[in-house]
Amino acid sequence: MNRSMKVPMSDLLESALDPQSVAVIGASENIHKIGGRPIYYMQKHGFAGRIYPINPAREEVQGLKSYASLAALPEAPDLALVIVGGEKAVAAVDDCAARGVKSAVVIASGFGEAGEEGREVQKAMAERARAAGMRLYGPNTQGLANFGNGAIAGFSTMFVEVPPADGPIGVVSQSGGMSAMAYGLLRGRGLGVRHVHATGNEADVTVSDLAWAVAHDPDVKLLLLYLENIANPEMLARTAAYARERDLPIIAVKAGRSASGQKAASSHTGSLANEDRAVDAFLRHHGIWRVRDPHAQALAAEAYLKGWRPEGRRLVVISNSGASCVMGADASEEFKLPLAELSPATRRDVAARLPGFATATNPIDITAALLSNSGLFGDVLPAVAQDPAADLFFINIPVAGAGYDVEAFANDTAKFEAATGKPVVVAAWQASVAAPFKARGIPTFGNETEALGVLAQLASHTALMRESHAAWPEEAAPALPRGSGRFLNEAESLALLAARGVPVVAHRLCRTAAQARDAWGAVAEAGAPAVVKACSADVPHKSEHGLVVLRVGSAGEAAALFDAQWAKLAELGAAREGVLVAAMHKGRHEFMVGARLDPVFGPVVVVGDGGTNVEAMQDVAVLLPPFDTAEVKAALDTLRIAPLLGGVRGEPPLDVQALSEVVVAVGRLIAAAGGRIASIDVNPVMVGAVGEGAMVVDALVERAG
Amino acid sequence: MNRSMKVPMSDLLESALDPQSVAVIGASENIHKIGGRPIYYMQKHGFAGRIYPINPAREEVQGLKSYASLAALPEAPDLALVIVGGEKAVAAVDDCAARGVKSAVVIASGFGEAGEEGREVQKAMAERARAAGMRLYGPNTQGLANFGNGAIAGFSTMFVEVPPADGPIGVVSQSGGMSAMAYGLLRGRGLGVRHVHATGNEADVTVSDLAWAVAHDPDVKLLLLYLENIANPEMLARTAAYARERDLPIIAVKAGRSASGQKAASSHTGSLANEDRAVDAFLRHHGIWRVRDPHAQALAAEAYLKGWRPEGRRLVVISNSGASCVMGADASEEFKLPLAELSPATRRDVAARLPGFATATNPIDITAALLSNSGLFGDVLPAVAQDPAADLFFINIPVAGAGYDVEAFANDTAKFEAATGKPVVVAAWQASVAAPFKARGIPTFGNETEALGVLAQLASHTALMRESHAAWPEEAAPALPRGSGRFLNEAESLALLAARGVPVVAHRLCRTAAQARDAWGAVAEAGAPAVVKACSADVPHKSEHGLVVLRVGSAGEAAALFDAQWAKLAELGAAREGVLVAAMHKGRHEFMVGARLDPVFGPVVVVGDGGTNVEAMQDVAVLLPPFDTAEVKAALDTLRIAPLLGGVRGEPPLDVQALSEVVVAVGRLIAAAGGRIASIDVNPVMVGAVGEGAMVVDALVERAG
Repeated sequence: MNRSMKVPMSDLLESALDPQSVAVIGASENIHKIGGRPIYYMQKHGFAGRIYPINPAREEVQGLKSYASLAALPEAPDLALVIVGGEKAVAAVDDCAARGVKSAVVIASGFGEAGEEGREVQKAMAERARAAGMRLYGPNTQGLANFGNGAIAGFSTMFVEVPPADGPIGVVSQSGGMSAMAYGLLRGRGLGVRHVHATGNEADVTVSDLAWAVAHDPDVKLLLLYLENIANPEMLARTAAYARERDLPIIAVKAGRSASGQKAASSHTGSLANEDRAVDAFLRHHGIWRVRDPHAQALAAEAYLKGWRPEGRRLVVISNSGASCVMGADASEEFKLPLAELSPATRRDVAARLPGFATATNPIDITAALLSNSGLFGDVLPAVAQDPAADLFFINIPVAGAGYDVEAFANDTAKFEAATGKPVVVAAWQASVAAPFKARGIPTFGNETEALGVLAQLASHTALMRESHAAWPEEAAPALPRGSGRFLNEAESLALLAARGVPVVAHRLCRTAAQARDAWGAVAEAGAPAVVKACSADVPHKSEHGLVVLRVGSAGEAAALFDAQWAKLAELGAAREGVLVAAMHKGRHEFMVGARLDPVFGPVVVVGDGGTNVEAMQDVAVLLPPFDTAEVKAALDTLRIAPLLGGVRGEPPLDVQALSEVVVAVGRLIAAAGGRIASIDVNPVMVGAVGEGAMVVDALVERAG
Repeated sequence: MNRSMKVPMSDLLESALDPQSVAVIGASENIHKIGGRPIYYMQKHGFAGRIYPINPAREEVQGLKSYASLAALPEAPDLALVIVGGEKAVAAVDDCAARGVKSAVVIASGFGEAGEEGREVQKAMAERARAAGMRLYGPNTQGLANFGNGAIAGFSTMFVEVPPADGPIGVVSQSGGMSAMAYGLLRGRGLGVRHVHATGNEADVTVSDLAWAVAHDPDVKLLLLYLENIANPEMLARTAAYARERDLPIIAVKAGRSASGQKAASSHTGSLANEDRAVDAFLRHHGIWRVRDPHAQALAAEAYLKGWRPEGRRLVVISNSGASCVMGADASEEFKLPLAELSPATRRDVAARLPGFATATNPIDITAALLSNSGLFGDVLPAVAQDPAADLFFINIPVAGAGYDVEAFANDTAKFEAATGKPVVVAAWQASVAAPFKARGIPTFGNETEALGVLAQLASHTALMRESHAAWPEEAAPALPRGSGRFLNEAESLALLAARGVPVVAHRLCRTAAQARDAWGAVAEAGAPAVVKACSADVPHKSEHGLVVLRVGSAGEAAALFDAQWAKLAELGAAREGVLVAAMHKGRHEFMVGARLDPVFGPVVVVGDGGTNVEAMQDVAVLLPPFDTAEVKAALDTLRIAPLLGGVRGEPPLDVQALSEVVVAVGRLIAAAGGRIASIDVNPVMVGAVGEGAMVVDALVERAG
């Protein structure tokens, strides 16, 4: 944080990122030791505040007066760095709290990540700190580093390996290793990094809290996060909202995507597993772009820092290799960056500048003629630039070297970028070819996959950051029926949906065979085949017990089925709440809509291919509230069955609007329930052709424990 | 090719790869010019044969006697390099043929890739050469280079950019740019490259021909191909078979995967489009691994050259970063390299060597303790090595540098590899950390994705190379019914399948309403609902005309439908070949089986999710003959609907054996037809539960034009 900037923080984070005084408990003269490095770093990188080494065995540490204890200090320091380990660390934290320290960074490991006992000690330590009004970082952390003011309360060796330079990037990470790696990779690409913070076990301060603070540093233009769990989603959502407001892109790595990864995370930082599809939905909902690792974060950084925010995805590929044009065309389809259709005028103009071409198409193959005419690049670029069809530019130079005037190519490219402001990236694996482009600030990659991957990410992320989400009005909680069982029965579940305007299949709850006979008659009169199914909150999965019978042919059969199902419920020891006689409704396609209360993210809504294969096929999309029908439609388009939505073999398109309304209604229902509904399972929803609507045929609502 | 080795070649390829004499038509004194470079390269890289510069304007070129013409040479050279362009190139090729030159390499462009006229000239030139017994390379090629004997009949500047070193890799490419790029990337990784050949427009010699020749160089241990079309699949198949026999892995890039890529390829080398799924199936069938670009080829090369041929895919991950362990576990699932379940003994043994651990799990987190104890690596590796559960090893060092004894880690890793022979790869992005591993010949990558991607490729490719394919016996061609229309009618199509033992639905072809009435009775007697559908070779897609009626309820209705459909056929002007009355057969799932005659690859067989959504969903797998039911089952497992094969929600598994037999039968039918059947479309095949079999319900056979 820039010293001159005061940012609105609700707590004491500022004392850690912009401290006026820092105590190092366990200070060492040896700058290679953990207790020596922070003092060395602070003195080297211009920390202007007061540094208090604490080491009772020494008079002086690294030229600074050393103190015997916290109590001996002339003031309560803003920040204390606890280097000592084990029980000494716990004692030191308590001392800090007692002395009025505002923030303590605890390096020691052997807490939450080591098992149950460590978790307890860690929790109690954090609670005592918080009670005393002190914020705690770690334990098991590599610490904090702010190269904007030289406040380095951390010990990473990476700051020796790769010299720091202040710059527009903030890195906040649970893992010290990943913060160091991101820092190193970014610096290796010549980018300046201001913030490098690790939160370790997050006994108190989380990545989300620090992200909030760093997002308020106005000099930070790109924020990179590494998470193993999302412990504080509200704060991360708040940070993301603020970041979008000020056009600050956030790129996150969320590790523990898989079952094995989540297991490994729990023994690394004691992280609790997040359901990964919900993580995906959460990050997307908040405009945070997710990538697989710090390499991907570093790879994309420069393109973001250029300030490019592309309006579209139409790509122009230019290369001196025909093969690269072929592979570039392939990749454009793969990355969904369609080749821009250049206007006839542009094509003629480009062709006129290329020797021996009648017309030029995109990809533009400059051919080996570039070797004999270094001006070709500079000739072709402006001709293309004026075409409004082009959003993004990719220059691929797989072969060059002696004889090629690469400096001229790079100059022409830089001029082109300056004039148009349109994103232009280069792929060149030869260091000598890449260097002149890099020197001119053109994002330059080792290969086409990286270059186009970054362009695609930038285009998608820009669109995502600009998405707005519908707000859901405050609304009254639904009235759940009396009862204490885990599930509502089908009639109750359907009623809850119907009360919110969701179309549910016509049905009657019968308590006698005679009622079933009558109900069959009513269904038949309406012209539909009838279904008879037992209704009991104790039997949520009726089909498994043979308690759903389709196409019931007569009133007598309905009555007989009533008797049989009534008896079966008794046999199962289930409450006999009735037997449903319902119309059979067939749509063109069966969907499933579900909602559940995630322990971390709250209501999570799922929509996907329905029917009996839903578990096996797992063709679903996840949405986080609030969302509107437009967002549901976009989610439906990500399903594998998306091609069916538009209608196949001459059929009309499906009524996705009606389906989307059901999804929104289900989401609003679980949200309005304020934690009293644990899950809603609506399967199938029969969806007809456009205008035919959607119809809920079965539903199961689960009470929250 | 090593000069001492004579390889069995059926033609004159040897004259190009191991010439005793080379003429350069258009020789130049200037070593930076295309006419100067080959002579410079040959003299520099130890070509021991005779070099004949041809340049009427000079007495001497680069210290060699220059000749005025081919005719003036003291002998007919084995190889002539044609540098001159346009019509002069064509004349020079004719001169070469007349003079008895064995191979001519034509550099000039402006032939097949430039349009129809160029294609004609190119074709005629190649035909005249071939008639004279001369092989032609190019035109529009960068030429050939053999660093085993210094025969450099090419002009790539890359040989100046990156100094050559003879070695175990052969590169054969349509594109000169891509051959140069692969060469440069491989040399940049310190790997030796012997063959660097480009074929350009392939007027005569194709990549497949040169691959055949290079595969016979016994010093070549890895063969890399770049293709824009597969012009000579028989030769490539033959090469692949020979390569598998001698354990020579082939890694191919086939560009033009997409419609846009295929369009770009046609203007690059005049390539004809190959259907990409057939390309995939072809390469897989022949044990050739396909990657996206030369970067991916170079990335994997070293691991192949280690000679590793892993027997399994079970992975051990070792890192000094907990976060890398988490991401490694995630990646292991993604790459289908399951984490090896170490035995309790191994886990205890590893834990005993790690400070403060009760048990150690995989991934093995050595933690930052590595900084204080450099021996940890050497301690842990042997403990893991003895566990038979481990096939592959991955060491990830995301953070190290000063203070870490990386030399010791690298020594321990090299010792481990030498002792076990098991694949071990390293990820380290810091150059100083990677260097000691690289120096000891451990394949070392910039990141985990690359490292695990290569391990997964190696394991999959090894398994692929060891797959054996069933042979199909020679068999009599099927008797196609008389007729000259494009399609067989449904009855004829079903009969063709039934004759080969494929179960087809019970049906009768009726030519009167009375016959339809009787047929309905027979179906009803067998207990099935009946279907009535018009049968005419002129109406291959009956449903579109409403000519398929399901669940026909009575004999009278069947008779009425006969009349209606008979009339409709007349109305459509279609041949009235009958009306089918068939049993309705429902299985548990509908599949489609198709076969077609690909212009390049011959019979191509497709199996996938069936029914009406087949075009929209495109969930299919492609097989090339010959194959057996085991191969079909493996292909079915790649479908998105694969989870349904095993049975869902307590259902029994599907009868995949019966389905697979249908697929083999369809494949053998089109193969046996010897080009007389253009396509077979079997949709749906109703597949029941295990033991219930499969049943073909509809089929359409198309005659070859």
